[in-house]
Amino acid sequence: MPRFIAENPGASRGGYDPAARLADFAAARHAFAAGASTPRAWLEERLAVIAAREPGVHAFCHLDLAGARAAADQSTARWKAGRPLSALDGCAVGIKDTIDVRDMPSEMNSPIFKGHVPGHDGACVLALRQAGAVILGKTWVPELALGLPPPTRNPHDPRRTAGASSSGSGAVVGAGMVPVAIGNQTGGSLIRPSSFNGIYGFKPTHGALNIGGMHPIAASQDHIGPMAASLDDAWRTAWEISDRAGGHGGHPGLTGTAEPPRSLRPARLCWLRTLGWAQLDEASRTVFGQLLAALEAAGVGIVEAGNDGAVAELETLLLEADRLSNDIVMYEARWPMAAYVEGRHAGKISETGLARLRRGLAMTAQDYRAALAGRDAIRRAVGAIAARVDGFITFASSGPAPIDGLLDGSQEDRADAHLRTGSRSFLSPWSMVGGPSFSLPLFAVDGMPLGLQLLGAPDSDYRLCAVARWLDETMG
Amino acid sequence: MPRFIAENPGASRGGYDPAARLADFAAARHAFAAGASTPRAWLEERLAVIAAREPGVHAFCHLDLAGARAAADQSTARWKAGRPLSALDGCAVGIKDTIDVRDMPSEMNSPIFKGHVPGHDGACVLALRQAGAVILGKTWVPELALGLPPPTRNPHDPRRTAGASSSGSGAVVGAGMVPVAIGNQTGGSLIRPSSFNGIYGFKPTHGALNIGGMHPIAASQDHIGPMAASLDDAWRTAWEISDRAGGHGGHPGLTGTAEPPRSLRPARLCWLRTLGWAQLDEASRTVFGQLLAALEAAGVGIVEAGNDGAVAELETLLLEADRLSNDIVMYEARWPMAAYVEGRHAGKISETGLARLRRGLAMTAQDYRAALAGRDAIRRAVGAIAARVDGFITFASSGPAPIDGLLDGSQEDRADAHLRTGSRSFLSPWSMVGGPSFSLPLFAVDGMPLGLQLLGAPDSDYRLCAVARWLDETMG
Repeated sequence: MPRFIAENPGASRGGYDPAARLADFAAARHAFAAGASTPRAWLEERLAVIAAREPGVHAFCHLDLAGARAAADQSTARWKAGRPLSALDGCAVGIKDTIDVRDMPSEMNSPIFKGHVPGHDGACVLALRQAGAVILGKTWVPELALGLPPPTRNPHDPRRTAGASSSGSGAVVGAGMVPVAIGNQTGGSLIRPSSFNGIYGFKPTHGALNIGGMHPIAASQDHIGPMAASLDDAWRTAWEISDRAGGHGGHPGLTGTAEPPRSLRPARLCWLRTLGWAQLDEASRTVFGQLLAALEAAGVGIVEAGNDGAVAELETLLLEADRLSNDIVMYEARWPMAAYVEGRHAGKISETGLARLRRGLAMTAQDYRAALAGRDAIRRAVGAIAARVDGFITFASSGPAPIDGLLDGSQEDRADAHLRTGSRSFLSPWSMVGGPSFSLPLFAVDGMPLGLQLLGAPDSDYRLCAVARWLDETMG
Repeated sequence: MPRFIAENPGASRGGYDPAARLADFAAARHAFAAGASTPRAWLEERLAVIAAREPGVHAFCHLDLAGARAAADQSTARWKAGRPLSALDGCAVGIKDTIDVRDMPSEMNSPIFKGHVPGHDGACVLALRQAGAVILGKTWVPELALGLPPPTRNPHDPRRTAGASSSGSGAVVGAGMVPVAIGNQTGGSLIRPSSFNGIYGFKPTHGALNIGGMHPIAASQDHIGPMAASLDDAWRTAWEISDRAGGHGGHPGLTGTAEPPRSLRPARLCWLRTLGWAQLDEASRTVFGQLLAALEAAGVGIVEAGNDGAVAELETLLLEADRLSNDIVMYEARWPMAAYVEGRHAGKISETGLARLRRGLAMTAQDYRAALAGRDAIRRAVGAIAARVDGFITFASSGPAPIDGLLDGSQEDRADAHLRTGSRSFLSPWSMVGGPSFSLPLFAVDGMPLGLQLLGAPDSDYRLCAVARWLDETMG
């Protein structure tokens, strides 16, 4: 729950209520275990919220009510028998439409995939199903996850964007429709909508969750992860996926326990301004300053460019992060994008998507190698600092969700529409580093949520979650 | 061309002619450039070979003659105008049916994918098309690349297997139908059929060729690569793919030049026996001994377990290579295999495939981590030796292609049929190490071809190709 609240003078305000707490699945699970509710009854409550909110939010692109009810009934029987399959048994989940669900269309907001039903589940979906979760529906994405934006609106203010590529997954959780949705991040697509929608985002270490059955964008930065109503829900969802589906491409998966770790007070945190700092409004700077003061009051040392030469050098490297990340992503995304254009799908990609493809096609292998070298330099610099701090902090988005001219009808030109879903400057660094990242809803600015981003070295997920828990409990 | 020839007393002989040389595309290219032939005329010669050989070999599961003729006509126009797109312009290519071709079925010998036409090209296919290659057809694979074997027969002896998963690609080249086919290797599927069919196989470094659009088996060991009538064709094919499609998952791709390197005499080669040595027949041991003697006569030092402690230690580690590789592959292959079983494809997987899936499902994350640790130990040991030798040599298969009881009708039981496509013991090590591997047709045993395998450290592809060239020119 946001503790740090500020407003910009004269700013348009959203309708976010910092005092409201999203109902998470942990609460439902306790009710099921106590016999006070059932997965079916709880699902019906969720469906009532969906009926009320979805017409204004446009977050689900597909819903399978009959399938969800049947799965919830099976879960109810398991809970009544005292044999739930996991801590997620009965949890209604939304799946980003970049990820295959066996009996739902995988259309990715593109005519190329209109009506395409994959017939088998993506790895994370199969794992969730094996854990007893109820696969309720698919959530909206931009065209092929990188082109024209979807119709989704921010649940706290319909004039505002819900984020970028995982906006549908962010909105279904932020609107209280379901406690858990699956998102994916290549540039900044999971953490940013978590910030904009006031929820908990968790991008595990690159490779720690099997991305099989996810539409490929850029293999070296494609991550999947949970977007959830609580940190408990987020950790358990990631764990159940990793435990059943394994990591991806030789990664051993998450280590730790199915239970989230106990909270751990960090001795030192490294504050990274990144290129994003220059884009911030005054109220956002104010609340971050309040957080830093509260951390110092709690005895947490803050390491930053002003007091640490290595961090200052890293900040210099990070000024190139957006460009490097974009270069890497667009080079790797040439396939399948170019194959769509040259195959039987010519003409089915928007000008926005084509513009991004052209950027990748204009690059040479040498350009790509230079970008990889830049990424390696950032990874090394982060690794050296990570050894002496308990995590890195920065914002999870460059301020609260912006008002989107497309959504309120004031702008007609959709050509650069993806730019209006918010800056990636706070996201590019860790999309490249590949370490775990959490978005925690600790701030409210202009009546909108805003997340703190907590970042760690690759494969430090469990320990970083312990620090996230301390921040959530102590600073939230 | 095989220089080392031997026979086992009383052995059944195949019809391989060691004096026959496969016509490669380099020869065709020179004829096009000189105006002595055209891609269309050359294609018609290939189609005549296919008409003669395919009914006995069963290597192509799909052919697009009209599409190929149209593409060859376009290539003919480019050559006549003096503007070929690349050194592969006009080259007729077979694509293993694990890889998507936009307008051909991707069925992988499984009812799950019956009639599935992907609509866009896999990354390597798009690259080949952009280089002017003629995509002639798809080549047979076992069920989903790991279950029941295909009907393909060895072009040098119809009683014998053409190999395992890339057997169709091996046979179309070995039979002289086309000079280049694309294969893939996860356990041993590219190098083994190259050996059995008497052709040049090249498995580039893991990740150096983009595997986008290939059916996933085990991401950390999935490679694609060319199977070709000459080393020149093999290198150029790999280069054109890497240059256009890039590497996979953050890999910078092949370095070097489009032209194959000049030959390089190795000062020292490391001979690895591996677990495969114990499986060899006497004649195979004899020809390898002849090669070693010829190498020493040429001034090449041979480092091996008998004269080098580090190699002896590596050999000990390699005794576990088959088991470790199988564990890693079957754990990673749980998805999508398990998703097929639980999705709408239940009942469409053979008992052979299900048995392999069960092996993966029986493993825990701890088992998988132990296998990864074993692989890492092998990688480290290889890396330490690689720094002081110019390559590693061993066989590319455990002797010549075995007679397959399924193909000659003497065996009915198909349950363990994949075991009869030959041992993986010489292949598992480098499938795990991820370094480049060549199969060179230097041997003939029992009237069948047999390949020398030349292996290098990851990303040494260009230099290793120079050593391969020396071996091919000097020892072939």
